[in-house]
Amino acid sequence: MADYRVPREDMQFLLQDVFKVDQDWARYPALADVDMEMATAIIDEAAKLAETLLAPNARAADEEGVHFNDGEVTTPANYKEHFQQLAAGGWVGVTANPEFGGMGLPKVVSAQYEEMLCAADISFSLYPGLTAGAIIALDAYASDELKELYLPRMTAGEWTGTMCLTEPHAGTDLGIIRSKAIPQEDGSFAISGTKIFITGGEHDLVENIVHLVLAKLPDAPAGSKGISLFLVPKFIPNADGSLGERNGVSCGSIEHKMGIHASATCVMNFDGAKGWLIGEPHQGLPAMFTMMNYERLGVGIQGLGAAARSYQTALEYAQDRIQGRGAKATRDMTKEADALIVHGDVRRMLLTMKAFVEGGRAFSTYVGQQLDTAKYSEDAEEKARAEALVALLTPIAKAFLTDTGFEATVLGQQVLGGHGFVREWGQEQLVRDCRIAQIYEGTNGIQALDLLGRKVAGSRGQLLTPLLEDIQALLAAPEAELAKEYEQLGAAVKRVTQVTELVLTQVGSGDENVINSVAVEYLHLLGYVTYGYLWLRMAKTAQPLLSERPYLASKVKTAKFYMARLLPRVESLAAAIEDGSQSLYLHELGDF
Amino acid sequence: MADYRVPREDMQFLLQDVFKVDQDWARYPALADVDMEMATAIIDEAAKLAETLLAPNARAADEEGVHFNDGEVTTPANYKEHFQQLAAGGWVGVTANPEFGGMGLPKVVSAQYEEMLCAADISFSLYPGLTAGAIIALDAYASDELKELYLPRMTAGEWTGTMCLTEPHAGTDLGIIRSKAIPQEDGSFAISGTKIFITGGEHDLVENIVHLVLAKLPDAPAGSKGISLFLVPKFIPNADGSLGERNGVSCGSIEHKMGIHASATCVMNFDGAKGWLIGEPHQGLPAMFTMMNYERLGVGIQGLGAAARSYQTALEYAQDRIQGRGAKATRDMTKEADALIVHGDVRRMLLTMKAFVEGGRAFSTYVGQQLDTAKYSEDAEEKARAEALVALLTPIAKAFLTDTGFEATVLGQQVLGGHGFVREWGQEQLVRDCRIAQIYEGTNGIQALDLLGRKVAGSRGQLLTPLLEDIQALLAAPEAELAKEYEQLGAAVKRVTQVTELVLTQVGSGDENVINSVAVEYLHLLGYVTYGYLWLRMAKTAQPLLSERPYLASKVKTAKFYMARLLPRVESLAAAIEDGSQSLYLHELGDF
Repeated sequence: MADYRVPREDMQFLLQDVFKVDQDWARYPALADVDMEMATAIIDEAAKLAETLLAPNARAADEEGVHFNDGEVTTPANYKEHFQQLAAGGWVGVTANPEFGGMGLPKVVSAQYEEMLCAADISFSLYPGLTAGAIIALDAYASDELKELYLPRMTAGEWTGTMCLTEPHAGTDLGIIRSKAIPQEDGSFAISGTKIFITGGEHDLVENIVHLVLAKLPDAPAGSKGISLFLVPKFIPNADGSLGERNGVSCGSIEHKMGIHASATCVMNFDGAKGWLIGEPHQGLPAMFTMMNYERLGVGIQGLGAAARSYQTALEYAQDRIQGRGAKATRDMTKEADALIVHGDVRRMLLTMKAFVEGGRAFSTYVGQQLDTAKYSEDAEEKARAEALVALLTPIAKAFLTDTGFEATVLGQQVLGGHGFVREWGQEQLVRDCRIAQIYEGTNGIQALDLLGRKVAGSRGQLLTPLLEDIQALLAAPEAELAKEYEQLGAAVKRVTQVTELVLTQVGSGDENVINSVAVEYLHLLGYVTYGYLWLRMAKTAQPLLSERPYLASKVKTAKFYMARLLPRVESLAAAIEDGSQSLYLHELGDF
Repeated sequence: MADYRVPREDMQFLLQDVFKVDQDWARYPALADVDMEMATAIIDEAAKLAETLLAPNARAADEEGVHFNDGEVTTPANYKEHFQQLAAGGWVGVTANPEFGGMGLPKVVSAQYEEMLCAADISFSLYPGLTAGAIIALDAYASDELKELYLPRMTAGEWTGTMCLTEPHAGTDLGIIRSKAIPQEDGSFAISGTKIFITGGEHDLVENIVHLVLAKLPDAPAGSKGISLFLVPKFIPNADGSLGERNGVSCGSIEHKMGIHASATCVMNFDGAKGWLIGEPHQGLPAMFTMMNYERLGVGIQGLGAAARSYQTALEYAQDRIQGRGAKATRDMTKEADALIVHGDVRRMLLTMKAFVEGGRAFSTYVGQQLDTAKYSEDAEEKARAEALVALLTPIAKAFLTDTGFEATVLGQQVLGGHGFVREWGQEQLVRDCRIAQIYEGTNGIQALDLLGRKVAGSRGQLLTPLLEDIQALLAAPEAELAKEYEQLGAAVKRVTQVTELVLTQVGSGDENVINSVAVEYLHLLGYVTYGYLWLRMAKTAQPLLSERPYLASKVKTAKFYMARLLPRVESLAAAIEDGSQSLYLHELGDF
């Protein structure tokens, strides 16, 4: 497996030059202490952890996997020490509330940190990642008493968190969960039920695990409006935070999976376990979605991280491995063959990866900037606009970063040929680890439904406005060097507007199936257009800097590649969307 | 894991109604004994093996994997018994020469058999599959003496075969292999060198293994014109076929891979091993390509088989699993949710799989029919035309069947959500097992280069003629019910002609990079158009049969789905091809 190197320069370019996030920080009182120097120092520090501690351990951890023995789960060698080192550095609470010991860093910085963690080892990243999500949900909805008891310990990485949603018969459809919460005289609840696919449900990294559990109160209305959220600790803490008795929650088994072998995916049995209500009764879903929305960008970043790692290895291999002869001008006749990278098809694969990786990094930073504005801006209008962008972009971030991430890791495997299929180089592990990110935290199909149904059609297209405004602002001042590419993006944006109108019309005329019939293609369409916007924005930013930083020429060239070879996918997607629900509903059930 | 059921009806429809292969058999003297009744009986018999013997063992075999111990390789439980049962039934020599005990069946029938084997268990299928390929190469090029000694035993499945091409530094680029063959006084050769990625290089299924090895003679010209082919047995047989002394070939280790865990992928060390020349000196590549071309359709069928199996499981799951509510008309309010299959996005995934699987089955049968015509026809013109079609279609068969097969298995996993990522349902194994088929026997990038470079540009476009003629013959008599779809196919064919001319022009003007820059997209373009042709051909065949066989309505409906939702990919592919080599060669080496 090739060494992992954090792309510090590209992260710096995005933060400082493309998104100028330091100008935001200067305006937001809560971020007054943050500046670019500090951000750079933090990225450097995190990079050391990722490069020297986590990445070199990822393959061995995959091969060893997690062990299950009579309810106890043991993580692979070094995981416990590494987690404690991470926790000691404050890295579990990177974005957490400083009131409870968090670093309180802006999301644009933590997005870079999360990418490193995922590139180094997705399995490992899930333990701190889910804890960070649980911290956010508790910070937003838990009582002060619960916050004071739990948040300092979770933020310090002494206790970890989980989210317990899925049940054997209920995955996407949470409205039909059966877990029950019975009110107790002391104000707590007795939680019973079985939850499956619980990441980090049981493990040996820390002494206590805090489960956030969806369950139904006895008087719950049917469906998703009757779900409440509960905090259920593995050990019930005493008032001073020391651990008291073992709670009635246990791990029944762990799953054997395609990838993320070092992440414990648990069946959790709640047997009258003591829990506390988080937020209002029957309002569990909105509270859980606070956590889910945070996790969704995080899951998107898993796709990005895997792709970034895969690209580095593929590039290194393509530069070193000699095989076949290139065009006459590129031949090195002192060697028996030329490096793979001279061949057109290898370049196609590498540049596709590069376009997805650097476009994806720009995208996660773009969403991060909007999350920061939504959280920290004191300008109500600016805040509302950022919230709208976050609502629109979150499902795209989760699904498009992971779909393109998966495509990139598969290409990264292909560049290595047979060597990509064996364990040695690590490329096949990235494919297996990345794959789950398209499935969990709401499948990518569900993300698409959220985007097109709830967000776009739900707002009658209005929620698209801030994104289209950002794109139009760029298009209004085209860069001469990229005139053709600006035109291509303009044409693609027109296709978005066209098909959006078409879908809205079909919805208006009563087609109940159209949204779910074209949602995935619609999400991809918006994804490609948004990456097109970000590529031109990067290229435009790079253009005047070329004389001082010649390596930025690559941005302009990759932007041209993206527009010529990847943006055209918009055409096929738009054509499929134009078919609406028609060809999907010709088949009777017996016709399949 | 869901049970596997061989799609007998669809195979029958293709053979009898769409391709009317019995009319061919009646015309070819060598196939005079074959008729549809016999073919049906053979398919039934093979189906029983696949359904009851092989398929139920696949998951356990994957989990157990192959064991390596001091040069010895042990296959998973039941493999040896199953292989012997297969061999006893004559299934190793399905297409082999009857003179040496083969069944001599037409390829259109064996293509169905191969699909079953791959759907049941790709790992297992490789042991008989490579043996069948080795039989073909020996039958075509070996001396009569070698044939008489080896072919009866290989055909009977008493000995298996391998192909030893790749070396640590030489995969795609065979011209730089270092294995040496030194002539011996007795007319044999001493073979030395290291070969890697050798499927079935060592195992415990049978008593002897026959390696076909590429190596260089002392006087070999440089590059690929200096490669010779040798037969190197594990045990040197005595004249009566009994086993003599152990040869100087041994297995150094086995690979740990993403998938096909039950297939032994070996490092083979040849240390002055005794070998015999097959064919002429320095003419090893053409001889090996005889085997490779056979294998290439076989590898394509691996993608098809995996996709077919994945589709069955996904369909079963989507029909049984209830989750969420469909459109009002489809709701079953007696249940707490509706079956997955009512949802548009689930239908999109299932129909994409179905279109690839049934389109792929039609494609493998189409290629099989051309292989049969090329082999058995006594009409020189017909034979030459079929040979041209085989040359054109073989790289498409290998790459497009596996690329669409991989896409299908990934979708088949997605339909099951989290349940697709865990081992239980078998969907993740199909993804892992299918993935290698895009890589080995010449990566799909190399197939594309063969198609666009050697075949299309090499013939200045002439090799496309028989395919385009077949398509035009269909388009000339449009079916009223499918008028729109006929137009769509016509437009797509025009795009093929356009971009072919463009590429030929760029080649003519000296662009050395254009072929390899657009080859993969070109192969996909031709693949989608060919599947479009086959879908319309199936729909047209089905149309007049609907009253007697109502289930064929599905063919017409799936054809409409294919044209509306998948054929439009042609547009994006053509646009990428139109970019030529341009955007791939902007980057200097340092720009990546």
